[in-house]
Amino acid sequence: MVQPTDLPRNETGIATVLGILKQQFAEQFQTGQAIREQHGHTTTWIKNQAPDAVIFARSTQDVADAVKVCAAHKVPVIAFGTGTSLEGHVNAPAGGISIDLSQMDRVLEVNAGDLDCRVQPGVTREALNTHLRDQGLFFPIDPGANASLGGMTATRASGTNAVRYGTMKDNVISVEAVMADGTVIRTAGRARKSSAGYDLTRLMVGSEGTLGIITEITLRLQGIPEAINSARCSFPSLEAACETVMSVIQFGLPVARIELLDAMVVKAVNGYSKLSLPETPMLLLEFHGSEAGVAEQAETFSMLADENGGSDYQATTTVEERNKLWQARHDAYWAMLALRPGCKAVATDVCVPISRLADAVVAANAKADELGLIAPIVGHAGDGNFHASLLLDMDNADEVARAEEYVSWLSSLAISMEGTCTGEHGIGQGKRPYLVSELGAAVDVMGTLKRALDPDNIMNPGKILPN
Amino acid sequence: MVQPTDLPRNETGIATVLGILKQQFAEQFQTGQAIREQHGHTTTWIKNQAPDAVIFARSTQDVADAVKVCAAHKVPVIAFGTGTSLEGHVNAPAGGISIDLSQMDRVLEVNAGDLDCRVQPGVTREALNTHLRDQGLFFPIDPGANASLGGMTATRASGTNAVRYGTMKDNVISVEAVMADGTVIRTAGRARKSSAGYDLTRLMVGSEGTLGIITEITLRLQGIPEAINSARCSFPSLEAACETVMSVIQFGLPVARIELLDAMVVKAVNGYSKLSLPETPMLLLEFHGSEAGVAEQAETFSMLADENGGSDYQATTTVEERNKLWQARHDAYWAMLALRPGCKAVATDVCVPISRLADAVVAANAKADELGLIAPIVGHAGDGNFHASLLLDMDNADEVARAEEYVSWLSSLAISMEGTCTGEHGIGQGKRPYLVSELGAAVDVMGTLKRALDPDNIMNPGKILPN
Repeated sequence: MVQPTDLPRNETGIATVLGILKQQFAEQFQTGQAIREQHGHTTTWIKNQAPDAVIFARSTQDVADAVKVCAAHKVPVIAFGTGTSLEGHVNAPAGGISIDLSQMDRVLEVNAGDLDCRVQPGVTREALNTHLRDQGLFFPIDPGANASLGGMTATRASGTNAVRYGTMKDNVISVEAVMADGTVIRTAGRARKSSAGYDLTRLMVGSEGTLGIITEITLRLQGIPEAINSARCSFPSLEAACETVMSVIQFGLPVARIELLDAMVVKAVNGYSKLSLPETPMLLLEFHGSEAGVAEQAETFSMLADENGGSDYQATTTVEERNKLWQARHDAYWAMLALRPGCKAVATDVCVPISRLADAVVAANAKADELGLIAPIVGHAGDGNFHASLLLDMDNADEVARAEEYVSWLSSLAISMEGTCTGEHGIGQGKRPYLVSELGAAVDVMGTLKRALDPDNIMNPGKILPN
Repeated sequence: MVQPTDLPRNETGIATVLGILKQQFAEQFQTGQAIREQHGHTTTWIKNQAPDAVIFARSTQDVADAVKVCAAHKVPVIAFGTGTSLEGHVNAPAGGISIDLSQMDRVLEVNAGDLDCRVQPGVTREALNTHLRDQGLFFPIDPGANASLGGMTATRASGTNAVRYGTMKDNVISVEAVMADGTVIRTAGRARKSSAGYDLTRLMVGSEGTLGIITEITLRLQGIPEAINSARCSFPSLEAACETVMSVIQFGLPVARIELLDAMVVKAVNGYSKLSLPETPMLLLEFHGSEAGVAEQAETFSMLADENGGSDYQATTTVEERNKLWQARHDAYWAMLALRPGCKAVATDVCVPISRLADAVVAANAKADELGLIAPIVGHAGDGNFHASLLLDMDNADEVARAEEYVSWLSSLAISMEGTCTGEHGIGQGKRPYLVSELGAAVDVMGTLKRALDPDNIMNPGKILPN
């Protein structure tokens, strides 16, 4: 929780731009304090840095128009989707204009024959899946929050079923984006693969609004599987659970989800949801495929779990029982909060090679104990990605300082294991110091790209790169 | 076949650099004409533009040292792997130094528990797979040629089983690269996913040596499947074959390969390999999975093929029979050449959304007829990627001109269908005009990136971007 500093404000430019945009955007332009603060909203411990105004864009042209005005006067532009990012991505440390894309919420086309669709950035993943359901299709990336697809693209989001379907980088075919000078580009066509020049699609995915604002996204879709099977299994230790995950991956078992809950989370869920799960580390799984295929997968998993001392194995195919089985995972966040009423949960997000997952999780638990912190862990174990949630009394400065030490230590640990300080939340404001530790000279190359594409540093300044 | 023009040569710089590098690299430095011409080798109709010297690099430090000397004197540097690229990628239109990476051929580490490995760029895909076999692992990307993994990374290669395993963009976890100023960067750690800043890995993949020289690659591996099943099926028309491909993709059938051969190719193979296949469009497939899984996949495929008038369906599981079944595909190149003895085969490489594949292939056949050209087609149908191979008498200027018209027309057709002028071969010299037609203003952004990272345009000049 090194709090982000305020950056120098271009007061003259901001005043000029506010005047122009108010004229140009009429009721789409808002400066009320509540609206501004909501657009500097952070879901974590990072302080609010509100923009000077919010524009509710309705079209790519709106975005391009607004960016051109801001570019002419060197005023920051910050893209806003649903505000569910976790590292201060939508903050406005130098002030400027927030461009709210939530009204650009149309699904523009669905090409069922090609398993793709084109959407505006404000479409949320749940809205897209509702839209697709009748056609037997779904979009697999599920970061938990009902985030906008623009925001998910901008932060390279993933979530529970990345182990099978990949992250946003694997599921975005092309984007349309407004660049820092207001130019609109499209990064690719609709072919499933291409070797046509630099991969601008992947450059925009994960760029967190610092290179351009994404105004359309072409996404890869999946057919809704014929059968979905779920399973859960308890393990005597974190090592045993993680060994099982490694076996699953090495075996090539195409699990759709494989989530790890540490003993503290299981205990929390038992209390919160009145369950009686064994209070040891647990894996929760989902299998997608044909009827025979998911049955075979579940059986293979049970065999692999057995080899590592798995117990209390349960599997099911009906939706109702599946939901019950997964209840522990769905309730985990609220159950963890209930461990310490009144606390704030601050999420961490490291990712390590799977062979190091057990070491990392065990060390993270020990470090939290050492620092006197409560930090239950859930993980997207198939990717080696886990979240220790720090349950903090934010009024206790000493505890907050110890939490800061923990976060910094955890990032260093992951980096020392050839992992990353962020598996899916992104860098934003909060992770900037760790990015440099992680990638060294490569961060200079990122800086060169940023300066080339945004020489006046107007696109979401103060994010990703060191100041 | 718009032949690449020679670009202005920095004669003073080149002379200086030759003197320095000869001292510095001793026997690793070569200027013999045969060696130089071999390093300007093109496998297609693009003329040879030899470099002024070749350095056989043995380490990242060698590459960095050579690049630094060239950077200081603004002399071009061209990376060379195996020379199997198809669009003039290794040509030296402004002269300069070819850096041959074939001696950097060590597999540096294999992490079986994480399904990844780290290799030097000169390791070929066959050498890697030989190295991995004992551990039950394989690297799935197979572009046909026994290319180097550095070259495959630099061109974003793919091939027959991209439909299941993706392209190089999906299978490269991280690269080490020497940038235009000689700085060495590593783009990522070894975690399976990351949201840490701009995706420099994907920026380097497909950059064709124009942004930096790849000196190490961390690759994702796969377990060798328990069972491999093959099948082939003939169809009354291209439309019927392509409809079947679309059904396969929509059904979510995880085919490892699904290759289309048009009637002319089947006829060529019958003649060349003494087979008696029905001389109609054919699909060849491979399924990877468990014993039960591949059997189920083959059965589902046969059902989908039936619905589209498929006939002469054959499936097999033994290696010997599988090889026999795939013989038609493996022999296709030589069989096509035999259709017109003494001809040169010039490959094209468009990729369209699968729903447009039938239209595109039918139109391509008709256009070849209209222009009096022989252009049999094979395709990685599951990706919508196909290659019409022009069988040309290169001494017939009129025919070559018609071939040029065909290539240009085909690229435009693919682009008009929201596809791409190159699915897997890359832009190099040959496809530069089409890149602009395809991506418009996005190519300006690519130019901005190139100038930012390589302000003196020394990294493989004359490739990808318009001059």
